[in-house]
Amino acid sequence: MNLILVEPFEVLADGVVRVSGARAAHLRAVLHVAPGVAVRVGVIDGGTGVGTVASVADDSVELRCAFDTSAPERPRVDLLLAVPRPKIMRRLWAQLAAMGVGQIVLTNADKVERDYFGAHAVREAVYRALLVEGLQQAKDTRLPTVSVHKRFKVLVEDDLDRLCPGGRRILAHPDDARGDAPSIASALSGIEPDERVLLAVGPEGGWNEFELALLAAHGFARVGLGPRTLTTTTACIALLALVHDALRRSAGGS
Amino acid sequence: MNLILVEPFEVLADGVVRVSGARAAHLRAVLHVAPGVAVRVGVIDGGTGVGTVASVADDSVELRCAFDTSAPERPRVDLLLAVPRPKIMRRLWAQLAAMGVGQIVLTNADKVERDYFGAHAVREAVYRALLVEGLQQAKDTRLPTVSVHKRFKVLVEDDLDRLCPGGRRILAHPDDARGDAPSIASALSGIEPDERVLLAVGPEGGWNEFELALLAAHGFARVGLGPRTLTTTTACIALLALVHDALRRSAGGS
Repeated sequence: MNLILVEPFEVLADGVVRVSGARAAHLRAVLHVAPGVAVRVGVIDGGTGVGTVASVADDSVELRCAFDTSAPERPRVDLLLAVPRPKIMRRLWAQLAAMGVGQIVLTNADKVERDYFGAHAVREAVYRALLVEGLQQAKDTRLPTVSVHKRFKVLVEDDLDRLCPGGRRILAHPDDARGDAPSIASALSGIEPDERVLLAVGPEGGWNEFELALLAAHGFARVGLGPRTLTTTTACIALLALVHDALRRSAGGS
Repeated sequence: MNLILVEPFEVLADGVVRVSGARAAHLRAVLHVAPGVAVRVGVIDGGTGVGTVASVADDSVELRCAFDTSAPERPRVDLLLAVPRPKIMRRLWAQLAAMGVGQIVLTNADKVERDYFGAHAVREAVYRALLVEGLQQAKDTRLPTVSVHKRFKVLVEDDLDRLCPGGRRILAHPDDARGDAPSIASALSGIEPDERVLLAVGPEGGWNEFELALLAAHGFARVGLGPRTLTTTTACIALLALVHDALRRSAGGS
């Protein structure tokens, strides 16, 4: 927890925040805070600042916060992800939020089991806390928005342009392992500073031919990630790292 | 399991291999093989080819294998990693092997707990199977070599040049989050086709000043990964993705 995140409603008028539960336990047991100690704090979807510990009780810590920055930019990458197995999905949320994703669009696919949609891992009460955990790790405040879609065709044909208007759309598919697909960097070359990227990651067994054709017809360009076939988790992290890197370069970084 | 890996001693003179245990269960329960079906097979640290199912028994499957390729190149990246918590380490092995690592050098550091070295997760009997799992996922046969070092200073001063001679050495450190450290691509620019990369990833709390100075004195150049602080697992995958991408580009890929 490199940043203590609080909900907007938790910030009282004079900047006082009383945290309890996991955050209080972390402040006490890991950071060993005492009155007067300053910690980094942030408001979900808001700015960050410094919280000075006012008091430490058994199950709560009171902070006096001064927020000195406005909300960071929303990460410029969105993710269209075929729902993985619940055990995998559960571990993935925090990692996605830590890597930086603006929007997570979960979808059905031919090789997605129907019962994945009933799993705890895709319930907001479960995933929101995991996303916040990832933000606290990465020192970000921007909570990814999440939507869940049980009908792939309806999503791609009717909803995706509204959810993710404009921008570049890319799709990494294991069949491109032979190395003939362009790299992410070349697929994103010349991207404008206000353009977003929508990255599609398929199920472990891959998208089927119909799904690939539908995605292609809706603007997704195939990209390659080298000759190795990766699991959903590893692929998501690797692809997000490459997209963020390409965006940093296009912004003039080294 | 996108490739069934076998040990060299399992391959009999006429290419017959009888697999049992997890591999047989996978062939039967996931791939639903029957006599005559062909699957991709590989020999650990050797070539790959096609195995034709000869017979299926309750706990074993007999394959007649024809190996048609020589062993792939060893991945050009080595990893110097401060041992993470056992639970994290256990999950990391397969992901590292899947991403592609030639050598894994595990080290102590100021912020590594001593008892991590006694954990099951750093015993060869445990990690070898997990590495093989990752190779089978990524369709690689090259088993990463692993060494474990309890004394950081001795490792860096006396052993590292022997374990990892020559090549580029890079180090990603969270303190570089402000964006003043060069990117991995620029740190690896002009790398020769036969040069290897040694990537250092520190403990969750980071290397201390002494460790950073010692690594710098032994040729590690700092690189940046943007403003986000990542966990060991996420950082390893993201950094390996960027190193492999930089190596592909330097080899003339797009």
